Amino acid sequence: MKDRVVSSRAVATIKILQQPSNLTWVEQAIANLDTILLDHSHCERKAAGVAINLMFRYPSHQKLVRQLTAIASEELAHFEQVNQWLEKLGIPLAPLNSPPYFSKLKSQVRHGEPDRLVDSLLISAIIEARSHERLGLIGEYCPQPDLAKFYCSLMASEARHYGIYWLLAQEYSDRATVETRLAKLAEYESSILATLHHEPRVHS
Amino acid sequence: MKDRVVSSRAVATIKILQQPSNLTWVEQAIANLDTILLDHSHCERKAAGVAINLMFRYPSHQKLVRQLTAIASEELAHFEQVNQWLEKLGIPLAPLNSPPYFSKLKSQVRHGEPDRLVDSLLISAIIEARSHERLGLIGEYCPQPDLAKFYCSLMASEARHYGIYWLLAQEYSDRATVETRLAKLAEYESSILATLHHEPRVHS
Repeated sequence: MKDRVVSSRAVATIKILQQPSNLTWVEQAIANLDTILLDHSHCERKAAGVAINLMFRYPSHQKLVRQLTAIASEELAHFEQVNQWLEKLGIPLAPLNSPPYFSKLKSQVRHGEPDRLVDSLLISAIIEARSHERLGLIGEYCPQPDLAKFYCSLMASEARHYGIYWLLAQEYSDRATVETRLAKLAEYESSILATLHHEPRVHS
Repeated sequence: MKDRVVSSRAVATIKILQQPSNLTWVEQAIANLDTILLDHSHCERKAAGVAINLMFRYPSHQKLVRQLTAIASEELAHFEQVNQWLEKLGIPLAPLNSPPYFSKLKSQVRHGEPDRLVDSLLISAIIEARSHERLGLIGEYCPQPDLAKFYCSLMASEARHYGIYWLLAQEYSDRATVETRLAKLAEYESSILATLHHEPRVHS
């Protein structure tokens, strides 16, 4: 595995992310696939919860509500699929500590509207973009062909989700302001991941 | 409308509920269908959120997670359907105060496990059972045939949901204890609804 990862192959930079994942993350993830799969299940449920909470906070925002309903439904469907994989592989459901990634990103959300909404949407866009990148890396390096195929199959929706969050942010502020803020948040996000978290997680 | 409601027709008691809804609620609901439809949208989103929060709190409970994933997905699908009705009828999405029903029921949840879990599941069962009853009443008395048909179509899943919550509660305590507790909570729930809340809501 190690030889394969530490190859000359570069990890492509996903649009909106400032830095691609370190190859050390890929090594950690593939060496701890059971934990990553369990954490991935938590991530899908969390993503559904985040979308529902945003709808709860902005119940009058027609477009946001419509699009986040679709995202929440898809995240739940993925949650179910990941849980089926856990069952198939005999990995019991269990709680897992969250990596600091999420609380650090959340700490960047500004107060007052529309800043709070724009930041929340942009942070969701970044998390989805990072998930898209990392699930793709698992798909690429996972030694179990069926599981690899499953991970590749999830990539398209993660990409769609980050596009939706990004476009939604532009509904509540002008494009130039959103792009400047996105670049700043994405830089911060890359800085969090520059140091590998000791516990293997999708966002370690 | 009033003549039709205040007829000799009795409101049937749904299994697990202690008292059927007052006909005054039906009158209030039918006279304020726009608000009820909007509140119903909030109820579906809340119900999805409650299911997701329970999975978040009990991430190792395999059966609970599997069944509440299905419930959350269905609630989101209903949320989407109700929102389509709102759009069709030109009712804008908007926030609405919650009736005291939910916070009062929540105040009954005991501390310590498994009591907290059992009570949370039983309260969800009761809320779903009441929704089943009241959506059925809207279906019966609503003057718009298409909307009435839509409400009748939702009844089967609400009934299924309350059955699932009730059976899940029995996974975490013995049947006799669960039945005694359910009877007590259901009695309290009927006492909340004995006084009609002044704002028209699905649970006023």
